[in-house]
Amino acid sequence: MPQLTEKFRNAFRVHPAGVSIVTAHVDGRPVGMTVSSLASLTLEPLSVSFSLSQLSGSAGGLVKASSFLIHLLGEQHADLAGTFARKGTERFTEEQGWDYLATGEPYLPSAPAALRARPLAVTEVGEARLIAAEVISVIRGPDSPALVYHDRQFLSIAQLQLAAAD
Amino acid sequence: MPQLTEKFRNAFRVHPAGVSIVTAHVDGRPVGMTVSSLASLTLEPLSVSFSLSQLSGSAGGLVKASSFLIHLLGEQHADLAGTFARKGTERFTEEQGWDYLATGEPYLPSAPAALRARPLAVTEVGEARLIAAEVISVIRGPDSPALVYHDRQFLSIAQLQLAAAD
Repeated sequence: MPQLTEKFRNAFRVHPAGVSIVTAHVDGRPVGMTVSSLASLTLEPLSVSFSLSQLSGSAGGLVKASSFLIHLLGEQHADLAGTFARKGTERFTEEQGWDYLATGEPYLPSAPAALRARPLAVTEVGEARLIAAEVISVIRGPDSPALVYHDRQFLSIAQLQLAAAD
Repeated sequence: MPQLTEKFRNAFRVHPAGVSIVTAHVDGRPVGMTVSSLASLTLEPLSVSFSLSQLSGSAGGLVKASSFLIHLLGEQHADLAGTFARKGTERFTEEQGWDYLATGEPYLPSAPAALRARPLAVTEVGEARLIAAEVISVIRGPDSPALVYHDRQFLSIAQLQLAAAD
């Protein structure tokens, strides 16, 4: 049903989403990708959900990880979010500002928040995986206006906050 | 660990999210609630994910439903989203503009899009339920700027679009 798929894509194209980069240390190398499905799940156990739409490339590494570092991104990360959303791009370069936790996960110190988490449940739906993960620790970084994905663009929430303050 | 929970809440408070109202017809009555965790999952099968953080009230009805109608909300639905996010509020009043599908689900014709879906998988995490649902049909409504939830406010994406066009 290609027409149904097209209507579905059009509906979601304009459904706004916060943006995160999920990283892990898997098979001796760093993996990471941009995720726009992150949501708080519940406080007991402290947990989040996110999904990986297919298991090629970086997602295939993430789904094997025993722990993740989930970075909630700020407006200054628009380019980085684009890089980690596309296949075949250069990841974890020196210029991108990555550090590494003692536990191995690539860490972006400029992210407003990073949640260290471990998988609780993985649901298979076609080629996708829907992941529930328990949050073990929260690392606060510098505050900055959040990044929003909408209509294939990464935008800053700052304009919305200004409009709301009027 | 109340401090960890507090840091987690603070991080998510400023993580932006699109807003939907999920409705169903369960045990002869309409149920519905505001959900800020809706995300596209995969195109094959055409599917979405969302979560219910606790099973009291309307969420308890939704989790029993054999089909849902997931409304992606526009900026004009800020008050309605607030009503369906709180417990004990008046739902499905005449003034709110609800119609009903032949299949029973409450339908909001003013929503930019409504996805009819049925549950594929339900994952239990504490009191929460993480739901993967197959999309059966997509009903288009009038276009309008999307609603965004951020910092406990429902905001219009329109300001972001204006800023991006500059």
